[in-house]
Formats: sequence, C-alpha cells, structure tokens
Amino acid sequence: MTFQIAMSPRVRRSPFFEATVKAGATAFSIYNHMYLPTSYGDPEGEYWRLINGVSMWDVAAERQVEFLGPDATKLAQYLTPRNLSSFSVGQGKYVPICDHDGYLLSDPILMKLADDRFWLSIADGDILLWAKAVAAERRLDVEVEEPDVSPLAVQGPRAEDVIAHLVGNWVCTLKYFWFRKTKVDEIPIVVARSGWSKQGGFELYLLDGSKGQELWDSVAKMGKKHGIGPGCPDAIERIESGLLSFGGDTHPDTTPFEVGLGKYVDLKQRTNFIGKAALKKVAEHGPARRQVGLFIAGRALPNNEHRWPIFKGRRQVGLATAATHSLRLKKNIALALIDAAVKDRDALEVETPKGRRKAKITGLPFC
Amino acid sequence: MTFQIAMSPRVRRSPFFEATVKAGATAFSIYNHMYLPTSYGDPEGEYWRLINGVSMWDVAAERQVEFLGPDATKLAQYLTPRNLSSFSVGQGKYVPICDHDGYLLSDPILMKLADDRFWLSIADGDILLWAKAVAAERRLDVEVEEPDVSPLAVQGPRAEDVIAHLVGNWVCTLKYFWFRKTKVDEIPIVVARSGWSKQGGFELYLLDGSKGQELWDSVAKMGKKHGIGPGCPDAIERIESGLLSFGGDTHPDTTPFEVGLGKYVDLKQRTNFIGKAALKKVAEHGPARRQVGLFIAGRALPNNEHRWPIFKGRRQVGLATAATHSLRLKKNIALALIDAAVKDRDALEVETPKGRRKAKITGLPFC
Repeated sequence: MTFQIAMSPRVRRSPFFEATVKAGATAFSIYNHMYLPTSYGDPEGEYWRLINGVSMWDVAAERQVEFLGPDATKLAQYLTPRNLSSFSVGQGKYVPICDHDGYLLSDPILMKLADDRFWLSIADGDILLWAKAVAAERRLDVEVEEPDVSPLAVQGPRAEDVIAHLVGNWVCTLKYFWFRKTKVDEIPIVVARSGWSKQGGFELYLLDGSKGQELWDSVAKMGKKHGIGPGCPDAIERIESGLLSFGGDTHPDTTPFEVGLGKYVDLKQRTNFIGKAALKKVAEHGPARRQVGLFIAGRALPNNEHRWPIFKGRRQVGLATAATHSLRLKKNIALALIDAAVKDRDALEVETPKGRRKAKITGLPFC
Repeated sequence: MTFQIAMSPRVRRSPFFEATVKAGATAFSIYNHMYLPTSYGDPEGEYWRLINGVSMWDVAAERQVEFLGPDATKLAQYLTPRNLSSFSVGQGKYVPICDHDGYLLSDPILMKLADDRFWLSIADGDILLWAKAVAAERRLDVEVEEPDVSPLAVQGPRAEDVIAHLVGNWVCTLKYFWFRKTKVDEIPIVVARSGWSKQGGFELYLLDGSKGQELWDSVAKMGKKHGIGPGCPDAIERIESGLLSFGGDTHPDTTPFEVGLGKYVDLKQRTNFIGKAALKKVAEHGPARRQVGLFIAGRALPNNEHRWPIFKGRRQVGLATAATHSLRLKKNIALALIDAAVKDRDALEVETPKGRRKAKITGLPFC
C-alpha cells in the first residue's frame, strides 16, 4: 500500500532535508518528531551501493540527549544496566535503557565527550523526557537537553576512503564507537566510527544545524570518485545483519534479555541503576520470549509492513517483527520474537500476506 | 512537495487503520508512533463536511496514559499546574503539563474515571515516559501504563444527532469534556463530549482494539442519513478556531503563558506541582513571546509545511507556526509566536513561499 506523507510544521525537518530532496528522496518516515528519508526510489540499487560501495544517509532523526554537569556520570550510570566504570572520553558504548520494571525504553549509543558531558544517541522515543524527569526528581546537578547535533552516516566498504579524504588518515585508526571532534570546510563535526549497518562506516555529527546542505555537499563531492550516492538505513541489510530496530522488534514489555542485549546487563555491579531489581528477577526465571532468525519457505516475499504471526500447530507462538527477501542469500529471512519454550527444531509457520509459509529457526546474524 | 510515507512495523497501526484505508485515506502522518490519517483526497469537501455536517476521524493516535492506584490523584496533581481540587468522576479537564523549568511538554485532556484512575489523553510526545519516571522516582503507589484505548472522533454540527442515535439521548445533556462508559453493538466504549474542532462533537474511546472495524462500521451506518463521511483533524478549521497544535505551535522552551494557557496555571494553590517555581518567575517577569493571530495580505496561500519567519523591518520577531487560507473568511490567516515586545499595531511582514507579504496582528479565534 502506498500513501502520501503529510507535510506539517509539527514535524521537524532535518538540517539535511533540502539536500535529500534535491538528491531525489521519494519516501520518508517520522522518527523522533523529524522526517527521516527511507527511499530514493531504487531499493535494490541502494542496497548494493551499501554492500559494495559507499552510501550517505540523513540520520539526523537519531537525536542526541545531552547530559552536562557535575552529576552527568551519575545520571548516565543510573539510566543504564551496563557497567560504565571503565569509560574513556572519546569512547561510545551501546547501552540499553530500561524502565523500573526492566522493560527496554531505548537502545542508544552513549558517547562520553568529557568527564561531565555525554550524548545519548537515541532510537525513536522521547528519552529526553525520561532523562529529564529522572534527573530533576533525583535533584541531580546536571542539565539534560537536546543539543543542535545531527548525524549524517557514511556507510559501506568504501566509507573509510571517503572519510579519510575528508578529514585525514587518522580516522583509519579510530576504533568502533570511538569519536573525535574536527572540522570539514570550517563546518564543526564529530566523527564516530559507527552506523546502523554492518558494512563499516562512520557517522558525522553536524554541530551547526544551519550547515546541513554544506556538509552534505562536501561529503558528496569528496565521495564522488568512490561512487558515493544517497541511501537510507536499509531494511534488507539490517535484517541480514541482525540489527535491532527498537519499537519495531521489541514490545512495550521486552527486557534486554529477550533481544540479545543481556550481555550489557551487569547485575553484579555495586552501583544501582533503574530496573536492577526487576532485571534480577528476570535473570533468575529466564525471559518470556527470545529473538531468533527465521528462514521462511517459498517464493520471494515483500518487506513486511506490519508484524506477521508465527504458529506452532494451531497455537500462535510469536511474531515475525521484520521480514525481507535477502538479496545476498536469495532466501526469505526474518527477525522474530517467539515464546521462550519454542525449540530451535520445532516446525513453525508464518502468516504472510502471500499465505501461510513454513519457517525454520536459525541463529543471528544471517550474513 | 509530495512524498510517500514508509510503511514499517516500527509504526503502530490504529484499530481503525484498515477501515480508514477502505474509506479512501490518501495521506498519513505519524503521531505517538502510530499512523494518523490526514487526508481522504478532498481537503475542501472534508472541511465543509465538518463545518456543515458531520465527519468521523480516526484519532487513535491520541493515546492515553493511565494512572491507576492509591496515588493516582497525587500524581495527576503533581504533573499539572492546573488546580484539580474540584474534579468529579466522569469529568475531563484541559491540563497543561510542564517540565521543571516550566516549559510545556504536552496539552492533554485529563479524564477522571474513578478516584484512583485517570487517563491523560495526550498530544504527540511520550508523556508515558515522563509520568512513569516521575511516579517511580517519587515512589508513588500508582501504575502508569498505556491502556488499549483508541478514540474515534465524530465532529460537526450534526454529530450530536449521530451519537444520540448511536448510544441514546442522554448524550445531549453531557457537558463539555464530560464522559460516560457505554456500549455500541456490544462494543465497549467511553463517550466524551470533546474533539479537536470547534464545530461540536464527541470522541468515542474504543476499549477493545480488536473491534476497530466494527465500531467504524456502526458509526458509519448510523451516521449515513446525517451525511457522515470520513475526515481528519482539519488544518484549516483548527487554525480558524485557534486550537493549539503542541509541537507545531510551540517551541521546546514555550511556557503555558505564551500560548494562551496561563489561565490553567494556578500558582496560588498550596499543592506543589512540577514547574511551580519556574512558572512563578515567568509570571513575575512576563513571558518572552506571545501567540497571536495574523491576517496575511495578498492572494490565497497554501497551508504552511514549515514555519514562516515574521519580520518587523529587518528584524525577525517571530514565526508563523500554522498558516492557511480560511475558506470561511476568504483570507490568509496564521497562528504566530512573536516577541512579547511587538505591539498589535506594528507593521509586520511574513516570508511565505510566495514571497514576502504584509501581515496584521489580530485576536484569536478567527471564527
């Protein structure tokens, strides 16, 4: 089904919005109250550009929540089950954020800019409200705000060539999730080795929202000889890579243990964090569901527009949260949340728009 | 500019989604992580149906945040500057929600279902996270959840006829924002006299998300002889009526005083509420901006897709946050946030997509 997206002043435009329109964006979603380009009209071409070359994405909708002040570290540690006791300035960490019941609220990257300054690079959801309320009600000495910071992702095997030309060869030694502040044509940015694909790459965090077109143009110009072109977070690649889409692949009562984030939950640390008691109970009893990969039989399926029910015999045992036809595997694949009791060898069926199909559980990632 | 909206399992479908598609919805926005229909392809026809007849709207994206438990009243009062000391079961109140700096976070309707149970019927923004964090960190004995409740609005001068036929003549005596639980064809609903228009009408809060198509069909069938048809929250009518769109007509640092909600701020009440100290300071010094109406000169302008800058001479003094060509007044009108120092008689200009136009300040509402 295809529908128009309403253009309204309630929804924010990214600093790169005009640039993406000029570059031929054809579809958008809304993410953190901001337009997020999702297609330039050539899904297969955009996929292969990401797999074999280099692609540039307006992901400004991945907003930052900044903690600034003497209690910034205290707030950061209280918000996540991950142990932050060893954390360097210039480093980023993938940190689940849970509520007091241990349910996942977001799966952001936490970036340590200084001993008293952090950014949470968030998934879709107003973590700004969550962090503000927690900080204020605990009377922490920290300011919690959304800064003027907008990421532009450069992803794909040739991304490093582009970014090295753009800012210097030092980026080649940048470790995963680490970052550094620099300038491109006098435009202030933070360069991080990160991004929502497994094809390698960087995110350029634009620090001046008035310079979106300029940064876009600089990257496009420098990337030209490497074959750079516009793209978006890629539905096919991210399923193949087993990357989590918070809100899509999670339920309101999903704990980190259900979606492969248990390794980031440190229940033994002395420090208290939100959800600790609840997560201890879940760890003792085991989670109710688990995320698995599925191969779905039969002819090529379209990307799923909503979740598809999974059956074991007559009983519904879960949902395929994200499904696609893998262009590399030439198979239908899906991420699924299923009852923990379902066994890997159980015969399953998925209710797709093309009818009921047999499905087999497999490990993640697919590629 | 017209673009496609990405259909993704990350975004929720309303219980009425399939019904709206069958009824011919052509455009959607995303509001509270849910698709919100914004057009059936005939903006003028939909407008006049609302003004002269009766229109039905899928506004399920207006989600509820439920407070349930002994401290529900305490939480509700702590969250809003409005004095809730006289508040009956069955009543609703328009309650600004502010952060600790006095900045507006939402402008919901608070509905009192029982002495220990409330719904906040929210604007676009995760107030669920805000209320959960506040309740948990203050150790209040209250559950904060999003219930399975989805409003269907029936708006327009003939709405009362439709709803009276549907649930009984008792609705004719229902006061504004009051509500009652009932059933339609065995479908459990709450009927409230409310809705985001000034043409009169009701909202039917569906209490079982599996019955969306059934409720839609029941209303459509009963409304047939009154000429009911599908519609959406109407950009033109709401500007004519001076209704606030949170996020569209507000900035992140807008206080209730700037947008006509000062009358709901009770600084004299003994009870503490979030933002009280900050709002006292604003009340003493006066707000930085004020919301006004504008008449914009010249030929008919399109609805604004983003905010238009307002100038007094060379100086930018504000933004037209919502603009349209009024079909009743046959004039270009806008809601604007301007510097408090600007006087009503000052000569202003607005930078529109059709060039710079003269503008005059006027009172609200327009109609």
